Amino acid sequence: MPLARVHNLAVSLDGFGAGADPSREAPFGHAGMRLMEWFIPTATFQAQTGDRERGETDPETEADDRHARRSFEGIGAEIMGAGKFGPPGWQQDENWQGWWGDEPPFHSPVFVLTHAPRPPLRLGETTFHFISAPPREALHAAFDAAQGLDVRIGGGPATVREFMAEGLVDLLHVVQVPILLGRGSHLWHGLEDWDRDYAVVSETTASGVTHVTFTRTPQ
Amino acid sequence: MPLARVHNLAVSLDGFGAGADPSREAPFGHAGMRLMEWFIPTATFQAQTGDRERGETDPETEADDRHARRSFEGIGAEIMGAGKFGPPGWQQDENWQGWWGDEPPFHSPVFVLTHAPRPPLRLGETTFHFISAPPREALHAAFDAAQGLDVRIGGGPATVREFMAEGLVDLLHVVQVPILLGRGSHLWHGLEDWDRDYAVVSETTASGVTHVTFTRTPQ
Repeated sequence: MPLARVHNLAVSLDGFGAGADPSREAPFGHAGMRLMEWFIPTATFQAQTGDRERGETDPETEADDRHARRSFEGIGAEIMGAGKFGPPGWQQDENWQGWWGDEPPFHSPVFVLTHAPRPPLRLGETTFHFISAPPREALHAAFDAAQGLDVRIGGGPATVREFMAEGLVDLLHVVQVPILLGRGSHLWHGLEDWDRDYAVVSETTASGVTHVTFTRTPQ
Repeated sequence: MPLARVHNLAVSLDGFGAGADPSREAPFGHAGMRLMEWFIPTATFQAQTGDRERGETDPETEADDRHARRSFEGIGAEIMGAGKFGPPGWQQDENWQGWWGDEPPFHSPVFVLTHAPRPPLRLGETTFHFISAPPREALHAAFDAAQGLDVRIGGGPATVREFMAEGLVDLLHVVQVPILLGRGSHLWHGLEDWDRDYAVVSETTASGVTHVTFTRTPQ
């Protein structure tokens, strides 16, 4: 059975997966890049930006990269919330095509959840579909598109939380960053006992973050 | 300079250091013992309850114990909130003497912050002083009593948070337990950027918890 997976979701110690007041200039709001510092030096990220060949390893970032690259393995489609596709108000800008330029790093269909659907947008190997659908319905569409591969729930935190609350997440990989953001988009709110049906493994890496991976246990 | 230190403060992934609805029968409320499971098998805890001699080591729990026992090193006094001394309403029960029996594990003066002060209570090597004082004033009293040793801010989470908010905590050791409690007493609320003046070290242990230790950096 294909799985719905969340990867590389960085959260502060106080549970925020993005800062407050995101904008075009500051996609992560007041958090700046503080949630991403572990990710940027990884070979996985460097390969995306073309700064380094994929496959180069660095002992300092190897463990982080081992986690990071799983996000791109076996995925046939992504679902993302409107807040990940663009800054507040992008729906009113018909020229907005996302943050990622001409070759977005998804290389698969991406379903953008928005109350203002528009025609599909093809950029390189990625096609964005803009749909207004509840989580379960969106997941069905994404599984169809993924043709037997897994689906990534790509964020942001509020979208992941919605899918978690409905029991739709099979694997959750969060990266605990030991900072306190104080405000922003909270991942954990209202998920009492969510962990009960999951096995959990934690690993602190050289960068100082802790990778926490929940995997749904067979019922 | 003596330090104000917090140790062994277990928090859920969603930031709760105690469950909701604490009572005489359930001191940690709906959390039960889930925040304490890492601590109970340690030599430090076992020695407190007399189940095992202090100094016995167990490879499975050795790393947790290395953290746990620091809480008892170099401490000359403790400060605790009213919610740690007893269940809600203990102030109306003049026979309530805390949870710990005739020989509490503090072996030092303990300052209990309460709006209903009562005369000091001596139990074994521990004397409880009941005071109504703001954090800074309570800390002065505790440092005086500690005679050059450090002061432990013993909890609960709301009390620790108050001392953190006023910049009074020099060392904070929290134990991240990968569970979601959903409700209870939140440690992190309203502490934006608190970490900026601290160095932080994280360590995941065999029990699956992650010890996160913040140490104030010299200014």
